Parts: sequence; structure tokens; C-alpha cells
Amino acid sequence: MIKIGDFYEEIISFSKEDIKIFAGVSGDFNPIHINEQYAKSSIFGGTIVHGMLAASVFSKIFGTKFPGEGTIYLSQDLKFLAPVFPNVEYVARVEVTEIIKEKHNAVFSTTLVDGEKHQCISGFAKIKHKELI
Amino acid sequence: MIKIGDFYEEIISFSKEDIKIFAGVSGDFNPIHINEQYAKSSIFGGTIVHGMLAASVFSKIFGTKFPGEGTIYLSQDLKFLAPVFPNVEYVARVEVTEIIKEKHNAVFSTTLVDGEKHQCISGFAKIKHKELI
Repeated sequence: MIKIGDFYEEIISFSKEDIKIFAGVSGDFNPIHINEQYAKSSIFGGTIVHGMLAASVFSKIFGTKFPGEGTIYLSQDLKFLAPVFPNVEYVARVEVTEIIKEKHNAVFSTTLVDGEKHQCISGFAKIKHKELI
Repeated sequence: MIKIGDFYEEIISFSKEDIKIFAGVSGDFNPIHINEQYAKSSIFGGTIVHGMLAASVFSKIFGTKFPGEGTIYLSQDLKFLAPVFPNVEYVARVEVTEIIKEKHNAVFSTTLVDGEKHQCISGFAKIKHKELI
């Protein structure tokens, strides 16, 4: 059973190809993500990963790793604190902060942190798992 | 300039192919999204769209429609209230609820509603737009 303080970490990076694919499937062709020239002259100095693509790592972790199969995603809040750049490694971490046993729900902190320990994305998620919570 | 009450609506649906593509790019191969047999015997009765894929419509709207180019996504919270099914039409709506003029920020309500007016996703987003807010 899952308990408070349990966590899962994973190193992740997104390629420019991932960004193109996400732009296609989401329809978000904001040039900051896909137009090198446009992005170079922006405050970010280059193309950045869609926030929702970067945050999808939490969906992946919950749905396939921890707790894994059987997870139902109830909520996710996300603060996009700093840009996520392509081809850079980040650490995605989810950690149990609250258990609502009678509902089989748990709250997790969800963070994406860069190599200098700065949070690029932070937030909380609530999930349901009938067997593990 | 954007003002409180301004909104944008769009009809959207996601195909099973969209789901497969999102599973690939996010790594979220939770069988509830991609395994028909598994999903049929679940409480949903069939495969469902990843919450983060469905919610990416808000990213698309902000980044390309309203306010469009120049938008910086600051935060998004999401409640996944009901399953989003493939090949079903939903109405995505964003509406300005607050303007923080001095920071060029605005808060939007963000909802995805099914044909029976039930909210499947609800939440709020904060964005920055130097020219339009």
C-alpha cells in the first residue's frame, strides 16, 4: 500500500521531434515551440517544450509506474515556473503528501527540476487507486 | 485588450490515433487509454482520452487562438471530472475571470463540456501576454 512520503523519480528529456509530435496532436503550433528563429528572439532564447507536454510525464508516471495500472487521474495543478528546453535532462518527481484512505485517493506533489535544482514545473495531483491506496 | 468575460469556444474531438500518438510522445501507455479489451471491462466501458491530451486543447487555444501568439502559460489546474471518450465532440471554453494588469497576467476559467452540458474537465489557467493584457 502507498504511504505518505513514498516517491518516484525519473530522468526525462524531450526532443524537438517530441515537440513537433505534440504540436500536431494538440494543435498547439505556438511558434515559441516550433519556430527556431522566432524563439531565438524571444525571452527564452530558443524553442521551449510545451508545458502540457512536459507535464505529461506525471501522467506517465501515475499511469504506468507509480502507482501504475489502475490509476485514475482526478486532478492536476501545474505552475510553469521556468521554461523546459528540448534535449535537456530534467528530474520528474512525484511524492505522496496525503492519503484519503476511505476514498482510495492520494495527493502527490509533482515537480520537474532542472540540473541546477530549480523547479521548472511544480504542483499537486490527486489520483485514485482502488487496490494500492 | 482582453477584458473580464471575454471567451473563446471550440468544438474538439480526439481520435484513437491521437491517443496512440500521445501515448507514444508522453510514454503514458496506461492500458485504459490504448487497450480496448482492458478498457471494456473497466468502469469506463471503453478506452478514454488521456486527461493531459484532452486538456492540451487549452494550451492550443491560449497559444494559437485566444489570446494567441505571444502567450506565456503560467499555470493550469485541472479537475478530471468525467472521462473523455475518443471520437466524441466536446466544447472547450476559456473565459477571462480576472485581469492583473500591472503584470500583464489574466486568469481564465477552462472547461471541457460534453453534449449533455456536463463538465468533463474544469479548472483555471493563468497566462501572461505583454501586448493584449
